[in-house]
Formats: sequence, structure tokens, C-alpha cells
Amino acid sequence: MKKGSIKVSVLYPSGEGKHFDMDYYSTKHVALLVKLLGDAIVGASIEGGLGGAVPGEPPTYAAMGNLYFESMESFQKSFGPHAHTIMADVPNYTNIEPVTQISEVVL
Amino acid sequence: MKKGSIKVSVLYPSGEGKHFDMDYYSTKHVALLVKLLGDAIVGASIEGGLGGAVPGEPPTYAAMGNLYFESMESFQKSFGPHAHTIMADVPNYTNIEPVTQISEVVL
Repeated sequence: MKKGSIKVSVLYPSGEGKHFDMDYYSTKHVALLVKLLGDAIVGASIEGGLGGAVPGEPPTYAAMGNLYFESMESFQKSFGPHAHTIMADVPNYTNIEPVTQISEVVL
Repeated sequence: MKKGSIKVSVLYPSGEGKHFDMDYYSTKHVALLVKLLGDAIVGASIEGGLGGAVPGEPPTYAAMGNLYFESMESFQKSFGPHAHTIMADVPNYTNIEPVTQISEVVL
């Protein structure tokens, strides 16, 4: 991704009693994001957690979703008006309260 | 990145008294990884934390570094023999104890 792009990461901590429907997330939730944010999205990736640093250790995050935007302005302008609709879809795939992080692409 | 690839994320939690030298990390530490792991690395990215979900909130992670491998076997075979050397370089750029997560690329 281009240096200086904005990466919005949504990290879903794993834990007892937590569930995450990767199939729904990677198809229906992604389709909703594409429909609402359109061309403002310049890249996207999804990962499913396998483990930690020590073999056999559970992953810190059950899943990680990342959206890339050209600038902070582009993210805010596109996401802001749809934040409520997007958040309302979360219970359809998980009961996890995600950690959101906004970062700048360095490399 | 190709579906099924292995993503190794090293996340550096921000916090009081924590420092992170992005310049060293994105040049010298990366050069060390490339030298030691070579062709086993099929992709890499680095991000610097800007903020959280709420404007003005500090980022959960000061920095995030990601390496991609073709398979878990490729990661373990290439990283294992050099783990000690790689970890020994960490104090050269940060006093943060990182969170490591191994994930599978879904999208």
C-alpha cells in the first residue's frame, strides 16, 4: 500500500464465549462496506487468527479486518455518514467488541 | 496477499514511558529481517499508529509490523533459526514488549 495511506484496523479479541462468523464477515459485511464506502476504499484485507508467539497459544485476535484509504479526510468523509449502519451489522457476525486503530502506512 | 498465506503481526502497544524508533525499525530492523529470512518473506508492511475509534484517542498500538509467508512451515523454518538474533535487535528501537499474532489471510 502507498506510503502515507490510512489503514483502519478493526481487531476482534478472542476469548471465552466469543464467536465470530468469518463467512458472514468476509462476504456480507465486506459487501456492505463496499456498497457504502465505494471508491473511498483503496484496499482491504481480512485475516483469521491462528495463534500467538508460543506454539499452542491462542491468538490475541480471532479476526482482523483492515481498510485502506487515500487520506484521513477520505476515510472520515466516506465512513462518517455510514458509521451507524456499519456498526449495526456487527451483531450479525460477532459478539466481540472490537478494538479500532487508525494508522499511517510507513512501508 | 494470497488467500491462505500466513501473516505474522508484531503489534507494539503504546503507553506512558514507551518509545519506538520508527526510522530504525523501518530501515535497519527490516534490513536485518530481509537478510536473515530472505525469500521466505513474500510480503511486508509497517504502520505507525495515529489514533483510535474516537477522535483524539491515542492509538492502541504505536506501531504494527507484518510479515507474510507462503505457509506456516515456511515461516517456522526461516524464522526459527534466527529468532534469537531478531529478538536481540528489538531493544535497539523500542522498550515495548510486543504482542505477536499469527494469522491466516482470508481476503
